[in-house]
Amino acid sequence: MTRGKKKQLHLNLFLRNTGHHEASWRHPRSRPDGVIDVRYYQRLAQTAERGKLDSLFLADSYGLPPTMQFLVQQALEPFTLLSALAMVTSRIGLIGTASTTYNEPYHVARKFVSLDHISGGRAGWNIVTSTGNATAFNFGAEPLPDHTDRYRRADEFLAVVQALWDSWEEDAIVGDKASGLYVDPAKLHEISHAGEHFHVRGPLNLPRAPQGQPVLVQAGASETGRAFASRHAEAIFTAQNTLADGQRFYADVKGRMRKLGRDPEAAKILPGLCPIIGDTPAEAQDKERELNELTQPAYGVYRLSNLLKMDLGGYPLDGPLPYQELAHNAEINSQKARHQLYLDLARRENLTIRELILRTATSRGHYSITGTPVEIADEMERWMREGAADGFNLMPPCFPTELDAFVDKVVPELQNRDLFRTDYEGETLREHYGLERPARAAAVAGTGGRAAVSAQ
Amino acid sequence: MTRGKKKQLHLNLFLRNTGHHEASWRHPRSRPDGVIDVRYYQRLAQTAERGKLDSLFLADSYGLPPTMQFLVQQALEPFTLLSALAMVTSRIGLIGTASTTYNEPYHVARKFVSLDHISGGRAGWNIVTSTGNATAFNFGAEPLPDHTDRYRRADEFLAVVQALWDSWEEDAIVGDKASGLYVDPAKLHEISHAGEHFHVRGPLNLPRAPQGQPVLVQAGASETGRAFASRHAEAIFTAQNTLADGQRFYADVKGRMRKLGRDPEAAKILPGLCPIIGDTPAEAQDKERELNELTQPAYGVYRLSNLLKMDLGGYPLDGPLPYQELAHNAEINSQKARHQLYLDLARRENLTIRELILRTATSRGHYSITGTPVEIADEMERWMREGAADGFNLMPPCFPTELDAFVDKVVPELQNRDLFRTDYEGETLREHYGLERPARAAAVAGTGGRAAVSAQ
Repeated sequence: MTRGKKKQLHLNLFLRNTGHHEASWRHPRSRPDGVIDVRYYQRLAQTAERGKLDSLFLADSYGLPPTMQFLVQQALEPFTLLSALAMVTSRIGLIGTASTTYNEPYHVARKFVSLDHISGGRAGWNIVTSTGNATAFNFGAEPLPDHTDRYRRADEFLAVVQALWDSWEEDAIVGDKASGLYVDPAKLHEISHAGEHFHVRGPLNLPRAPQGQPVLVQAGASETGRAFASRHAEAIFTAQNTLADGQRFYADVKGRMRKLGRDPEAAKILPGLCPIIGDTPAEAQDKERELNELTQPAYGVYRLSNLLKMDLGGYPLDGPLPYQELAHNAEINSQKARHQLYLDLARRENLTIRELILRTATSRGHYSITGTPVEIADEMERWMREGAADGFNLMPPCFPTELDAFVDKVVPELQNRDLFRTDYEGETLREHYGLERPARAAAVAGTGGRAAVSAQ
Repeated sequence: MTRGKKKQLHLNLFLRNTGHHEASWRHPRSRPDGVIDVRYYQRLAQTAERGKLDSLFLADSYGLPPTMQFLVQQALEPFTLLSALAMVTSRIGLIGTASTTYNEPYHVARKFVSLDHISGGRAGWNIVTSTGNATAFNFGAEPLPDHTDRYRRADEFLAVVQALWDSWEEDAIVGDKASGLYVDPAKLHEISHAGEHFHVRGPLNLPRAPQGQPVLVQAGASETGRAFASRHAEAIFTAQNTLADGQRFYADVKGRMRKLGRDPEAAKILPGLCPIIGDTPAEAQDKERELNELTQPAYGVYRLSNLLKMDLGGYPLDGPLPYQELAHNAEINSQKARHQLYLDLARRENLTIRELILRTATSRGHYSITGTPVEIADEMERWMREGAADGFNLMPPCFPTELDAFVDKVVPELQNRDLFRTDYEGETLREHYGLERPARAAAVAGTGGRAAVSAQ
């Protein structure tokens, strides 16, 4: 119960080309040519808004893995796409990904404020530190910096971005046509940041965002990632395969937040959920089987080898993982938690390599439920009631069909249980998530207003 | 005459907050609050499309000058704004600015291809190298690199972007659901660029743009800038104050193109034009006077001092420029040609400081015509017929009123003279400008296709 009102779920739609199942593009009803067609995403965004979802989200990376023969992996640039989607929706939040490793804080600060102005307060930033050298080698000759260094840069990057977001006071614009005073120069602030990674003077060239600051989203799951999320995030995407794992993660993060003096309600924890929906259990299972039959083992072996940092090509598909030979997690530089999750899943359920590939083909290790709308709503309710989730990051296996099914069948079931809104109550992404609008941080000590040109 | 068809003008709309006159925000009919409201720009874009203009254009910089008390200078980020405008228009070209000095080629390549996909082939890139330390100090502790270094980086930057744009062959996507072959890996190409400024492996994570490559636009006017434009640009924005100056520039650039083996028609030269339109000459002059009376001398002195790199604060407003003391042009690091243009203008017309400020308040040194629709069309026709322009970069002094006046009064006059299209004939920006769709450059020698994951 929050503020006397029954606690309800928060739902984010994770958009991803033809769907989250790696073979979705091969499904007879998929439209792989749609993945660079803005109208395709418009329809998905409008469906999600019809379902009253809190937000939609675009993951992103700045490189292409060498597996393009197997599946769709190109992606429109998130800001051009989200801004286009802002024009054909009016309420749903728009969460874009930007890496702190391969960007400049000034550009990132500005893009999100611009999107927040254009969308009327619906922008969110999924903060990532990038993974893999397919990205790194598009930005220099150096491989991906190590995990700790990436997070150190992320800390400083975020501090700079937030300072830029606060570099205009709310009432800086006077706009007095008669006197000719447009902005009160005392209410624009240089940030004069000089740190390990960045020198940024500011101020930003855009007034403060309608939301005060765009919503901060994060998905780090390693120790460093959790610490970062607990300090900063307002929505947390996470991959949890069992209720018990979900509860542990939820308790851990909310506990960290309390220790840091943050209200645990100030960050919504949204485990990934891939719903495969049938009107009967058998129909749902058929759907899952149909998709799994379209997977390509060579791709599965590549994907698993890449995540586990070991070539599994020589091992029998129907045998176990070579646990002894797998690199110890501490040596893994990215997707550390996902690495552990796969090993735990395989051990716990005694899976062969082929079985592990299929279990992770649907949603790359995220929680997947194959069942009826009632069964899916039951699980969602259970995770919320039993302290594993504030909502979910929805990962439909196939677009648009499985998003349609979720909105048409699962959402009404959740609404009947009073677990989900029947209409938007707020205007902004912050309001949908029940987050406070952040007050502007005080100006950097001693800076005061910005030196202005003398009006003589 | 081109291809047996009467030569017609090309018209680009230069969008700029409340208008190009520095006092436009103070005009009774201006809407300064509109400058961060996407609906304001939607209306302007739709008006330009109603007028069948070739394109609209957003200038950009990554910093804020210390003159915000005098006028509107904040700006929405170009890609978020252009993408939003793509959703409410269907034909007009969308030209965004990106600096080669403070960006990474991978990001820039991708944003333009993404915008080109989203807009159905309407994207153009205005290539700039940035000016001023208000930008530089948002990206590090170093001041703006010198002019030559910026252009050297720009050359390499553009080469990388173009290679990334060509890193997918046109028919790389097979999309065979039955066999599971999505992309032919032999048709994706790493670019493996290793140069002075950049190491970029590629390929881009987006298929080739609908236009093959987005249209390249440039406005450099210095010797280095002209050389760059002559090699690369497909549309050239320029500031020319007299027909004779315009003719000299036009002949110079087209001559350079011929020497480089380029078809002179492959770049359209578009001088800036600020039309102040009245139904009678007197009405037009009243409009100009009304705007000039709203200017603020303190701002004018700052602007002039900043451009001329000398503090003019101590000189009488009604006296001449201190020509002797003005720094020699060779020491100027940015806006070199604009600097010279101001000095030439003041000398030629024997202007006082105050007069020079007013003459450049309308459009910062671009050509301004105050007159009736017929007088304005006469001048435009004359510039085209007499070899000074292939069209114009329109800089209305006030939005939306003076854009409305241009579209409603000058465009029909041009159409009656068969100097401007009465409807779009093509779909893409290239087609509007009569530019060829570039063939894909051959893959980097020896690279062949990209190494693919073995399908076993």
